[in-house]
Amino acid sequence: MQKIFECIPNFSEGRDPSIVLECVSAVKNTEGITLLNYTSDVDHNRSVITFMGDAEAIENAAIDLCRKTTALIDLRKHCGEHPRVGALDVLPIVPLKDATLEEAIELSKRIAKRLSDECGVPTYLYEDSASAPHRKNLADVRRGGFEALPEKTKDRDWLPDFGENYHKSAGVTVVGARFFLIAYNFDLKTNDLSIAKAIAKKIRQSSGGLECVKALGVMLESENKAQVTVNLTDYRKTPLYVLTEEVRRLAHEYGTEVESAELIGLIPMRALTESAAYYLGIRDFESKTRVIEEFL
Amino acid sequence: MQKIFECIPNFSEGRDPSIVLECVSAVKNTEGITLLNYTSDVDHNRSVITFMGDAEAIENAAIDLCRKTTALIDLRKHCGEHPRVGALDVLPIVPLKDATLEEAIELSKRIAKRLSDECGVPTYLYEDSASAPHRKNLADVRRGGFEALPEKTKDRDWLPDFGENYHKSAGVTVVGARFFLIAYNFDLKTNDLSIAKAIAKKIRQSSGGLECVKALGVMLESENKAQVTVNLTDYRKTPLYVLTEEVRRLAHEYGTEVESAELIGLIPMRALTESAAYYLGIRDFESKTRVIEEFL
Repeated sequence: MQKIFECIPNFSEGRDPSIVLECVSAVKNTEGITLLNYTSDVDHNRSVITFMGDAEAIENAAIDLCRKTTALIDLRKHCGEHPRVGALDVLPIVPLKDATLEEAIELSKRIAKRLSDECGVPTYLYEDSASAPHRKNLADVRRGGFEALPEKTKDRDWLPDFGENYHKSAGVTVVGARFFLIAYNFDLKTNDLSIAKAIAKKIRQSSGGLECVKALGVMLESENKAQVTVNLTDYRKTPLYVLTEEVRRLAHEYGTEVESAELIGLIPMRALTESAAYYLGIRDFESKTRVIEEFL
Repeated sequence: MQKIFECIPNFSEGRDPSIVLECVSAVKNTEGITLLNYTSDVDHNRSVITFMGDAEAIENAAIDLCRKTTALIDLRKHCGEHPRVGALDVLPIVPLKDATLEEAIELSKRIAKRLSDECGVPTYLYEDSASAPHRKNLADVRRGGFEALPEKTKDRDWLPDFGENYHKSAGVTVVGARFFLIAYNFDLKTNDLSIAKAIAKKIRQSSGGLECVKALGVMLESENKAQVTVNLTDYRKTPLYVLTEEVRRLAHEYGTEVESAELIGLIPMRALTESAAYYLGIRDFESKTRVIEEFL
């Protein structure tokens, strides 16, 4: 059984297409890698690559990518909207097919060590790979950005997990394993932002809502529409249909409706097959034993 | 590249667990076979095994299974709700991974010949393997059931494709290649069989209903419940959610409701992901580009 992981590196170049392409190519040309998607943002001056493969392929692609970003990106000259601490800024690893979170954590640690040993870029572990609770949250690890690294990497609480100090032009890289995150938006049939905000507050876990749900109410100015934008960090804890029905119910309560939902990026099959079984009313459904693709 | 086929034999025993188990074991113990699923239905007095493997493994498993069903099942003593002509009643072959429909047709013909030659069970080819247009449709091949075989197998239009007449206790077997078929039942909240029959008539393609839908109204005596039992021969033509919503609408029209749906055997991922996207209201959804497993 081949264990497959997904990797979604974020790197600090979104303006020079030739550099972006060289970085994407480094990943794409690694044996055993399937490139799924990449996007660049000019304002953030940042790109995201989504790819997958087995542990060995992911490891090799991560090293190759880090060699490129270290050679081509100089953070001393970088500016952009988005917080960042590294040329190769963040490298999340997600267990996909037949792989466990524990295996993703192991893989992230091997990669973090090699980035330091072989590319000279010190690394921090975050999320489920974090070496201490205060280092779990990416925003905390990244606080102060590249510019704060001379101070931060000397603070006892913030020594890198692998390597010392920081690479003078490429900074540090934050590596970690996490479960698959579904990025999902609900467009409302209203331009009343306060309703989107109220719904977001009611569903988000941090204010007593649904488990593994992060949510914000935002305004889509170009469409004059209020939106509830959601990160669902574990669809096994809160299935997509539970989230959807709750947002629909709340929208109704506030006198409006969900117009449509938007899926950002990719989604695991089971998040959908289980929602389908719910709505179709299929009894005793288990994706694992009933969906052909589970066996292929 | 290993070409993988699926095989979904239906055989005429659903009440005696020891016979069912012997038949399932015959398949399971064949080298190169992955047993995916099996289900038995007491009212239909019928079981369905779903398995996959390469052409050689499928061929061997089919012969072994037919030996068992011929030895263990006597149709002269069989009764059940479901139409049937054979102990091993129908043996569909579906091309799965890297296999074409043409290769599935070839395989089905080799198997049909061997069932007749080696097990003494005459065979009909149906669906995409059919030797004439009037023999494509399973319902036509099976019309009259086991009891009509003495007449039917002498009719010039209905001579078996391999062998002559019929096996006195095991009847005939219908073998053929086809696209993936979804076997699906709607249990109604009523014991009025006439409602199930009326709904079946309205949705089946042959009486002007939905494309690629075959349906019957049957009675689940053990549960005192009427059921609409459906074969959806191409979910790309009539999506599962369209079928479901139509059955729900009709049930409502007849003053009842669909209690639950039952999936028999396996289902392709896309039949569910597309239904999920419909009910969740995800706009611009395309399984091929959005579901992680499509890339695995």
